Amino acid sequence: MTSMSSASRKRASPGRSHICRLGLVQLACQEQPKRNTATACRLVEKAARQGADLVVLPELFRTRYFPQREDAAFFDRAEPIPGPTTKRLGRLARKLGITLVAPLFEKRAPGLYHNTAVTLGPTGRIIGRYRKMHIPDDPRFYEKYYFTPGDLGFAVVPTGKAAGGISLGTLICWDQWYPEAARLMALAGAELLAYPTAIGWWRGEPAQTRRRQLEAGVPMRKAHAISNGVFVAAANRIGVEDELEFWGHSLVCAPDGRVVARAEADEETVLLADIDLQEIAQQRQGWPFLRDRRLDAYGGLTRRYLDAPASNDDP
Amino acid sequence: MTSMSSASRKRASPGRSHICRLGLVQLACQEQPKRNTATACRLVEKAARQGADLVVLPELFRTRYFPQREDAAFFDRAEPIPGPTTKRLGRLARKLGITLVAPLFEKRAPGLYHNTAVTLGPTGRIIGRYRKMHIPDDPRFYEKYYFTPGDLGFAVVPTGKAAGGISLGTLICWDQWYPEAARLMALAGAELLAYPTAIGWWRGEPAQTRRRQLEAGVPMRKAHAISNGVFVAAANRIGVEDELEFWGHSLVCAPDGRVVARAEADEETVLLADIDLQEIAQQRQGWPFLRDRRLDAYGGLTRRYLDAPASNDDP
Repeated sequence: MTSMSSASRKRASPGRSHICRLGLVQLACQEQPKRNTATACRLVEKAARQGADLVVLPELFRTRYFPQREDAAFFDRAEPIPGPTTKRLGRLARKLGITLVAPLFEKRAPGLYHNTAVTLGPTGRIIGRYRKMHIPDDPRFYEKYYFTPGDLGFAVVPTGKAAGGISLGTLICWDQWYPEAARLMALAGAELLAYPTAIGWWRGEPAQTRRRQLEAGVPMRKAHAISNGVFVAAANRIGVEDELEFWGHSLVCAPDGRVVARAEADEETVLLADIDLQEIAQQRQGWPFLRDRRLDAYGGLTRRYLDAPASNDDP
Repeated sequence: MTSMSSASRKRASPGRSHICRLGLVQLACQEQPKRNTATACRLVEKAARQGADLVVLPELFRTRYFPQREDAAFFDRAEPIPGPTTKRLGRLARKLGITLVAPLFEKRAPGLYHNTAVTLGPTGRIIGRYRKMHIPDDPRFYEKYYFTPGDLGFAVVPTGKAAGGISLGTLICWDQWYPEAARLMALAGAELLAYPTAIGWWRGEPAQTRRRQLEAGVPMRKAHAISNGVFVAAANRIGVEDELEFWGHSLVCAPDGRVVARAEADEETVLLADIDLQEIAQQRQGWPFLRDRRLDAYGGLTRRYLDAPASNDDP
C-alpha cells in the first residue's frame, strides 16, 4: 500500500486552503412539526453563533419518523419546495449568512412525494435539491410507501464563498449503504458528503444486535471517505418514537477515515468540525485511488446481478 | 435503517448451511523463493491439520516485496501458470484435500507479467485465476513497472464441495480500496472476498501516520462485507524488508461487518475462521441493499470523472 509520508504531505499542491466550519444538528423530534422547526432554528442559530458556515439538519427533521407505519394521513405532512419551510429557513440562512441543508418531505404533485434535502444558500435562495435515490422498505421503515425514488441523480452543490467554496454532495440515510452513491458524488466533484439520517434501533432488539448495527454504520462512512478522498458527515436524530430509538452518533470523518467529531447517542447538540479542503488534495496524492479505476471492467455495475445475459436484465 | 431482529433471522430461508473453515496464512518473506515456498507449504499443512478447507496465502508470497525498486532483474522471479509452483502447490492441495489460493508473479509472455492469484482445487488442478485489476504505483510500491493490469475481470470461482461449496471472489491488495471490485464480485455471486495483500508502512513514517494507515484498511474491509453482504478475508505478510515493514493484521469479517478473526502485527500464523454461508442470506434479508441499487443512475461509474461530456472521456 502506498505510504503517504509527512514529506509528501508538504509537497502537496497548496490548492485552496479554505476552511469550512461544519455544524451538524442532532435533535429529538416531537409530535408537532412547528415545534421541531422551532428547535431546528434554535440549533441552527446556535451553530452559526459558534461560527458554522454550513449547517446540516437530520432527515425529515420536521416530523416524527412517520414511516414506522403506512398511513395515508401522513401525506398531509408533506409540503412543496419552495414552500413554507424553505421560506422560513431561507430567511434564517440569510440572516445568519450560512448555508443550510434542510431535509424535507417534499410534495411534488398529488400522489408524488419525495424524501428531499434542500440546500439554502446565504442569500436565502435554494441552491440545491437532492431527492433520496435509494429508498428502504423494512419492518418499521416503510419508506417505499411514501417516497418516490429520486430522479435528480447525484448532483453536487457548489456552495460559493460563504461555505469556504466547498462542493457539497448531499445524500440521505439509506444511501449511505451504497458505495455507488458516494463514488458518483465524488466523481461529480463533491468534497463533503453530507448524510442527513434517521437511523435507529427497533426497541425489541437485543443489546448485542443494537451494538452491531451501530458499529456497522461507522465503517461505511469511513470507507466512503477513504475510497473517495472526501469528508463525510452524518447528522442523525435522537430519542424514542413509538417502537424506534434513534441512536444519534452524528459523525464527521476526514478523507483519511479518521473521525474528527462524533456526538453521543442521546444528546441534543450541534456537532462542529473544521473542514480544510486542502486535505483532500493531500490525501488523494498520497492514496491516488481515483487514478487506477478500471472503467473498462465496471460495466456490470449497471446490472442488477450477473447471473443472466444483459438482454434479460432489468431495468 | 432496517432493524434485523432475532425473529427475522429465524425466518430466514435455511438455504445452504454449509460451513467452510478458512485458513489465512500470515508469514514473513525471506530472500530465497525456495525457502518462502517451503514456509508456505508448512503453514498450509498446519492449516489443513487444523481443519481448514480453504487456505489463502499472502500476495507474492514467494518473494520479498521486490516492487520497492524498479529493477529488470526481478522479472526473472516470475513463472508461468501452470508452472513449477502451481505444480508443487497443486500436489499439496490434492494431498491435503483442500482448496488453496496462491498469489504468484505470473510470466505470461516475454515482457508481459501479472500479479496473479491462482486457485487450486482439492484435485490439484487450477480452478481459478485472478489477475490483479487495480495496480498501484507510489514511492516504494512501483507495481506498474512490473504488472500489466489484469484482463480477466472479476470472476468468481465455485469451489465445489471441498470448501463447503463457497463461491470465492479473489482480489489482491490495492483492489481493496475499490468498492467497484467488491461489488462486481458480489454481483457475480461471490460469498467470500479473499484479499491476499502485501501492505506495510514505510519505515520513515511517524507513528501517528502508521496507526492511521492501519486503521484505514479495516473499515474498507468491513464496508465491503456490509454493503455486499459477504464474508471478507485478507491475508497479509509480516516482517521488515528494506524500507518497508509489513503490518500483518490478517483479518476475517462477517457479512454484518463484525471481525470474526484477526491476527497480530508481527506473528507468523494461520488465522482460522468458520464461514457459515447461511449467514449471507440472513444478513441480506435483514439489510437488503442489493434490492435497491439504482441501475438507471449508475452510468457515471464507468467514467473517469464527471467534469466533461462523455464523448471526451477516457478510455
